[in-house]
Amino acid sequence: MTARDGASYVESLRAMNPTVYLDGKVDSVVDHPAFAGIISSYADLYDMQVGEDKDLVTFDNNGTRTPTSFLVPQSADDLVKRRIAAQTWAEYSAGMLGRSGDYVNAGLTALAEASTWFEEADPQFGKNIRAYVKWVRDNDLLLTATVGSPQTNRAVSAAEQGGGDTALKIVAQNDDGIVVSGARMVATNAPITHEILVMPQTVLRGGVDDMPYSFAFAVPSDVEGLKLLGRRIHHRSDNEKEEPLASRFEEIDTVCIFDHVLVPWDRIFLLGHPAKSNSMFTATGATALMAHQSVTRTTVKTEFYAGLLIEMAKAIGIDSYGHIQDDIAQVLGAVQFGKSALRASEADGFINEFGFYQPNMAPLTAIRNWYPRFFPQLGHMVKKFGASGLTALPYDGDAMGEMSGDIDRYLQGRTLDGHDRVNLFNLGFDAAVSSFAGRQGLYEYYFHGDPLRMSAAYVQAADTSHPQKLVQDLLAHARNHEGSEQSQ
Amino acid sequence: MTARDGASYVESLRAMNPTVYLDGKVDSVVDHPAFAGIISSYADLYDMQVGEDKDLVTFDNNGTRTPTSFLVPQSADDLVKRRIAAQTWAEYSAGMLGRSGDYVNAGLTALAEASTWFEEADPQFGKNIRAYVKWVRDNDLLLTATVGSPQTNRAVSAAEQGGGDTALKIVAQNDDGIVVSGARMVATNAPITHEILVMPQTVLRGGVDDMPYSFAFAVPSDVEGLKLLGRRIHHRSDNEKEEPLASRFEEIDTVCIFDHVLVPWDRIFLLGHPAKSNSMFTATGATALMAHQSVTRTTVKTEFYAGLLIEMAKAIGIDSYGHIQDDIAQVLGAVQFGKSALRASEADGFINEFGFYQPNMAPLTAIRNWYPRFFPQLGHMVKKFGASGLTALPYDGDAMGEMSGDIDRYLQGRTLDGHDRVNLFNLGFDAAVSSFAGRQGLYEYYFHGDPLRMSAAYVQAADTSHPQKLVQDLLAHARNHEGSEQSQ
Amino acid sequence: MTARDGASYVESLRAMNPTVYLDGKVDSVVDHPAFAGIISSYADLYDMQVGEDKDLVTFDNNGTRTPTSFLVPQSADDLVKRRIAAQTWAEYSAGMLGRSGDYVNAGLTALAEASTWFEEADPQFGKNIRAYVKWVRDNDLLLTATVGSPQTNRAVSAAEQGGGDTALKIVAQNDDGIVVSGARMVATNAPITHEILVMPQTVLRGGVDDMPYSFAFAVPSDVEGLKLLGRRIHHRSDNEKEEPLASRFEEIDTVCIFDHVLVPWDRIFLLGHPAKSNSMFTATGATALMAHQSVTRTTVKTEFYAGLLIEMAKAIGIDSYGHIQDDIAQVLGAVQFGKSALRASEADGFINEFGFYQPNMAPLTAIRNWYPRFFPQLGHMVKKFGASGLTALPYDGDAMGEMSGDIDRYLQGRTLDGHDRVNLFNLGFDAAVSSFAGRQGLYEYYFHGDPLRMSAAYVQAADTSHPQKLVQDLLAHARNHEGSEQSQ
Amino acid sequence: MTARDGASYVESLRAMNPTVYLDGKVDSVVDHPAFAGIISSYADLYDMQVGEDKDLVTFDNNGTRTPTSFLVPQSADDLVKRRIAAQTWAEYSAGMLGRSGDYVNAGLTALAEASTWFEEADPQFGKNIRAYVKWVRDNDLLLTATVGSPQTNRAVSAAEQGGGDTALKIVAQNDDGIVVSGARMVATNAPITHEILVMPQTVLRGGVDDMPYSFAFAVPSDVEGLKLLGRRIHHRSDNEKEEPLASRFEEIDTVCIFDHVLVPWDRIFLLGHPAKSNSMFTATGATALMAHQSVTRTTVKTEFYAGLLIEMAKAIGIDSYGHIQDDIAQVLGAVQFGKSALRASEADGFINEFGFYQPNMAPLTAIRNWYPRFFPQLGHMVKKFGASGLTALPYDGDAMGEMSGDIDRYLQGRTLDGHDRVNLFNLGFDAAVSSFAGRQGLYEYYFHGDPLRMSAAYVQAADTSHPQKLVQDLLAHARNHEGSEQSQ
Repeated sequence: MTARDGASYVESLRAMNPTVYLDGKVDSVVDHPAFAGIISSYADLYDMQVGEDKDLVTFDNNGTRTPTSFLVPQSADDLVKRRIAAQTWAEYSAGMLGRSGDYVNAGLTALAEASTWFEEADPQFGKNIRAYVKWVRDNDLLLTATVGSPQTNRAVSAAEQGGGDTALKIVAQNDDGIVVSGARMVATNAPITHEILVMPQTVLRGGVDDMPYSFAFAVPSDVEGLKLLGRRIHHRSDNEKEEPLASRFEEIDTVCIFDHVLVPWDRIFLLGHPAKSNSMFTATGATALMAHQSVTRTTVKTEFYAGLLIEMAKAIGIDSYGHIQDDIAQVLGAVQFGKSALRASEADGFINEFGFYQPNMAPLTAIRNWYPRFFPQLGHMVKKFGASGLTALPYDGDAMGEMSGDIDRYLQGRTLDGHDRVNLFNLGFDAAVSSFAGRQGLYEYYFHGDPLRMSAAYVQAADTSHPQKLVQDLLAHARNHEGSEQSQ
Repeated sequence: MTARDGASYVESLRAMNPTVYLDGKVDSVVDHPAFAGIISSYADLYDMQVGEDKDLVTFDNNGTRTPTSFLVPQSADDLVKRRIAAQTWAEYSAGMLGRSGDYVNAGLTALAEASTWFEEADPQFGKNIRAYVKWVRDNDLLLTATVGSPQTNRAVSAAEQGGGDTALKIVAQNDDGIVVSGARMVATNAPITHEILVMPQTVLRGGVDDMPYSFAFAVPSDVEGLKLLGRRIHHRSDNEKEEPLASRFEEIDTVCIFDHVLVPWDRIFLLGHPAKSNSMFTATGATALMAHQSVTRTTVKTEFYAGLLIEMAKAIGIDSYGHIQDDIAQVLGAVQFGKSALRASEADGFINEFGFYQPNMAPLTAIRNWYPRFFPQLGHMVKKFGASGLTALPYDGDAMGEMSGDIDRYLQGRTLDGHDRVNLFNLGFDAAVSSFAGRQGLYEYYFHGDPLRMSAAYVQAADTSHPQKLVQDLLAHARNHEGSEQSQ
Repeated sequence: MTARDGASYVESLRAMNPTVYLDGKVDSVVDHPAFAGIISSYADLYDMQVGEDKDLVTFDNNGTRTPTSFLVPQSADDLVKRRIAAQTWAEYSAGMLGRSGDYVNAGLTALAEASTWFEEADPQFGKNIRAYVKWVRDNDLLLTATVGSPQTNRAVSAAEQGGGDTALKIVAQNDDGIVVSGARMVATNAPITHEILVMPQTVLRGGVDDMPYSFAFAVPSDVEGLKLLGRRIHHRSDNEKEEPLASRFEEIDTVCIFDHVLVPWDRIFLLGHPAKSNSMFTATGATALMAHQSVTRTTVKTEFYAGLLIEMAKAIGIDSYGHIQDDIAQVLGAVQFGKSALRASEADGFINEFGFYQPNMAPLTAIRNWYPRFFPQLGHMVKKFGASGLTALPYDGDAMGEMSGDIDRYLQGRTLDGHDRVNLFNLGFDAAVSSFAGRQGLYEYYFHGDPLRMSAAYVQAADTSHPQKLVQDLLAHARNHEGSEQSQ
Repeated sequence: MTARDGASYVESLRAMNPTVYLDGKVDSVVDHPAFAGIISSYADLYDMQVGEDKDLVTFDNNGTRTPTSFLVPQSADDLVKRRIAAQTWAEYSAGMLGRSGDYVNAGLTALAEASTWFEEADPQFGKNIRAYVKWVRDNDLLLTATVGSPQTNRAVSAAEQGGGDTALKIVAQNDDGIVVSGARMVATNAPITHEILVMPQTVLRGGVDDMPYSFAFAVPSDVEGLKLLGRRIHHRSDNEKEEPLASRFEEIDTVCIFDHVLVPWDRIFLLGHPAKSNSMFTATGATALMAHQSVTRTTVKTEFYAGLLIEMAKAIGIDSYGHIQDDIAQVLGAVQFGKSALRASEADGFINEFGFYQPNMAPLTAIRNWYPRFFPQLGHMVKKFGASGLTALPYDGDAMGEMSGDIDRYLQGRTLDGHDRVNLFNLGFDAAVSSFAGRQGLYEYYFHGDPLRMSAAYVQAADTSHPQKLVQDLLAHARNHEGSEQSQ
């Protein structure tokens, strides 16, 4: 099959029957208003694969139009192609769609190429991952992934959570496969995906207690025994002028509750290797390709905020103030940090042991560790710029004929009439003030895990011999060059 | 009349007929779901005036139970009584109700005492303000106030906004009073108040162009010709467990659009004195009493966030981490900053020229200038503490019988079952992530005006002779004490 | 004896013979140029006790002029007297003298009043502390104190440092007293004091290993067996115009190395009570009186920086810029934080179990925890304001006749001639850029200990029941008020 | 001549006779102790040009060994060569030498290649710059540059400073050249250079008043009529163990006072073109090559601080603490920001209109704008890590035989004996606390000018059409997609 279009995606969703709960059981995901906006947006992304931009987001894979997120890179140029594809999709949503398919696809591409790594655990696992990824790619399926256990107690491991009864674990094993029960958090978007990847947690400690928690597999999103418990919906309507982001881009975070779900043997990629589980993404290059996508997306997002701040500043006449320009300069600089990291990761990539060209992680890791701490400043700047203009945003004036004129007059900006000013500031509100914005903040802050733990991992993994040598050289020089004078 | 109870308040609202727009014209404010929560909360505040805590929030005014917010302070002890009353009300909403009546009442109390200041402009104005405040107090009315013009262009004055046609101004004057047209922003809560104070803007420059914009008066909230354009509602339901703050404490910010509204002469407190207008609140001591209330409220709010962070940390087992304790310590310290400022303002108050005991503004001003920059950290800490636990908050499980057990098990915390954990984290969400939280952030950031302009005003008004003397003394010492030695 | 004057202080120093090392053994502290500035400054402080300000810094103690730092407070007014005395001394040095005698005296005053607390350990200890403090007061001696062990390994306790051989401990005990060996850090100013207090460390864990490290005593600064190893000197000359702070206020931090020093029994205040040792300062109210002095001093210091920033801004014409005013506003606000805390601590003090009026610690603790993190901003602002004007500060032009005119012309400011501008900016340099400034930064950052550990202690000691109740009340309300409507 | 060695540099300095003032007139720069360390360090840099690393810092220029800082880049690889040369020199001083010759050489290289740009003003100017740069390169001269006027009043232009009498300007013009008088700030290192570039200020406004201030030329550092007024010296001795940075790397900032200095016509590169003056560095690509050098240097500097923090943390056993690792992670990430920017600027460079390969400025500008605000954090971290260990650093124990053993024992770290610990912490002191460190902070903060003005320039020069388009696309989508449902 060639790369999907939007209609095909919606049709495929309709053919599925996941067990989804919001404020009650959802009869039909496709027909439920909570999902209307997000499904439409994902359909738009798929439509790009067959529209005028198709060459930006797909490539010719031996005669088959294939999403570029599956392109196995052989050179820096291939990484550029992958980046352009990711950027094109990200720009559609100003980077607000954190789980567009290309993110997981980036990881899958590496995992399949690194099938020998899985074979070290079991030859069958290598075969499984290759076949599975081929199937996903050939059918252009949409996947989400889940890597975390319930948050019961952040001070202990999965096996110790809630008496061992909350985290997903293997409860039986038979000829057909393994049987798993327990919960996983957070599978964003699960109700509108085809498949869910259940990936190793990264905090397994390798002890025997962790064995039942050590696995990697995939299940259909509507597999029997799986309940998807969605979080509360944040958008209120489908009025785009009022909620330009929330009405279109609200990805629903989902708790996955497995109740004796059977996972067939051919869908299992790893089993019972805690140490290997911990390193699966990094050892295969999957982390590198995924980071290349996510840094592309967050860079687009920062660029959107730069544009938003500039437009707001112009609209109300504050664009010539020094402190306003200073804020904008910080954001424009942050965009460059992202772009520089991407270029450096591409320019300094290398053909890895699995034969594909892997981006240099060092620049991308620096961005991954920095962005969660930088991102909150963007919303804060929008609030500072918008001030009282963000406080009193009325309902869509077009639906209130009698007030339309008043809105146009009294809510005008320096350069915009009242309706356009309200629309622009509604965008600011949705990017910085609304529940949607609040959830984006949580999402970016914890995208890669707890920033403090990431720092620790970063330091422990870093080769710091060169920085230390700079210090040792100076100390050696001091030891070897006794002064001739007394202290002055 | 004695201090109101809640039923009386609701009844009085029902007797009014303001012209209110949300997503269309509102038939009945009292019956509209958008206002149900906030009216109920205000009714609770009024009920306190007749309940077991009545001595905390009212006083015996020659035989009449009167809200303590009208107590004319004669000593530091009276300020303590005023503080306890404000604190009692603020604790009801964890400081989320920024426009509870005691705020405006604090200002009115000072304005009435300072009637001689108004008489300097016109003897009638002094008489008017005294009579008006007495009437408000005797009827225990709820007021809001508006001090700002539309934000069209922040670089120019009201007279220059939108060709002079957007800001509220006098368009006619006759035997009955003045006639005003134009808009005012933002009158929080106007639809559920009895009266709206239309107060001088603080940016009048005193030129002749500013004359039509220079006034202080009051109108009933349902005066003919006044349209109240409410902002979009942020809460989604009246389910308190899901939205423990938004469902109860959402004060609606309102644009007031005046279309040839007549203001009778006896409701006018100032007219055509731009310079006097600018200093009305500070010269009369109104700013001091209002700041005493608002610092009390924000201190309670900070205290609530301290409690929230502590409860969340315990619930998920992170309370022994050093960086978590460090964050909590900052918040506990911030509470003390507020408390110390209040105590210092009381201890160092003085009987002013109008004969009442006025709190020392210096400690309160420091808090007012600091709080807008501190407050965003509170929400950020809640996000950091809550992490993924804030991301996947489901709908109220009690309404989903079949999922109730799963929620109890899989969303449990270290110390709480799933339902209680979700309820606690919903509170965190509403305090830091939701649209309600976002609007609170805007509200606190701009409560007193643009923080940068406040800084400029602060520096310009400050007596910095003593700090400068410390510097000059050191320089003089250096000039007078020549060294005897050469440089070493 | 009445309160000392400067000549008496210098004379008394000359009569002592401490073993001091700088870049070699110091023959005479009084005659060594490294100490000339600081001794002269301390002499100035003592001269205040007999000069025109004597009533600000001393009181009539039954006919004897006694330093106010020994006044046993019985009321809020007494605390005000103590504050004024501390402020008067602090203003002399712009708060740069962190170890002026009034700091330790504040602690001693409380310890003596709380002699019953020492008696609980041993009646003799109570007698000793009373007699010792009386002797110190009657002779107006200058003391320093040391509370820390060498920093060998911050992850372990004193007993575990360097094999147990680095931290000061008891090595013998006999009829005359105890014999101690090992090192203590950091006794600031020890070479110019009469006595050194050796106080309990606050990290004793109470185990049996800690017994040899558990004591409180005092020794003369020139006691036999004690070596005082001073740090490197930072000022270069006694030219005050070049180094207006360093040349006058450089207190020398000193490592105290004890080699079998005998401490007579009547100089021992506590021995072998680890638990009691840990709480000695807080349980007796000594911490409260010392904090009252130190917050007074740091508030003066902040006030000096406010003045410095204002003077520099005026000198080069940047005082009307918004971002400059914003910085100044932050500093003026910080001054108020200090002042408010002092007033609140005085107003809410209480007569404690030892019969003296103790300031409320809560406001002071908040300042103590905040100041170390705030202080670095002051220096950073000075650098921002001064810019290139701080980079090229020449030597004192008066000593270079031929260049004097060039300096006057080319280094002039907007409001100052070149010499005065250079003098002012030299003060800025010494307050923010020089080694002296750098050491002040270290001193303030660690004045009370590691800020992170202080945060932990703060949280652990705090009563947070009220903040938590605010949260619990909201949750209870939510549980008890089921919504009637469905989610919208 | 081939690239110099150190002896040749020192010999050439001895042949010059500049008029230098410190605390009096300097008889011989080469023999004055204030310059001993810095001259020795520069000599070391020159020695690298003939030592084992010569291929890293020089290239074969048609048979002549030439400093790589003069290599005219034709490709990304040439930029890499330039970067490696700059890095090699920067690592010698841990980035502390901000004015090593390669910085100005980078600019000169571009200016000479862009001689057609100068010819647009006058054909002779193009000829002059080409000839001058060739002469500098062939003789491997050391240059400094000055771009600023005295700071009298930051609110007005050079022509308005001090009545027009302080800033350097043309006072006469004749057949031999122009005659200039007035002052320039700050020419770092001028006393030990061969030549001083006097470059246009960037704040000329192009009015007729600015004409006498509009020029670019070069003079020998000992030209008649030029007085070099050096700032106060910060290091105290040549003891490297005590002052490992200050004793070696103290570059002296100098005020240049011109008293009727004649500048011959062939040394003038621009005269009387204010607009062209303002853009000289950017239009020619000089800014790009200089930024490529300076970002290389600051990246090395950051790397040194990373190493320093790691070594200090290990030495005292704090390296496993989460907050310590978090700080280290920030610094390691900051190193990557610099490296990524350099790689991106090289990978995305281009052959410019003058025929050489110019690095892409966008990544470098982002770093230039960020670094001044980031740098202060490095020193602050060193202080936090070092704590009391930085407070009591004694004099070099080797010079105090009797105390040597005590220092070894009592100042030991977890992993180091006392001497090595003191040496390491002395390095920390010199990198974060000393006057040398303070001056480094000033230097980096203002290296490129006032950060706030740089932000304004950045925003004004930036092409922000793409960020704005992201916003406009979302607004257009909202306008075109009316919702079908009512608000919920």
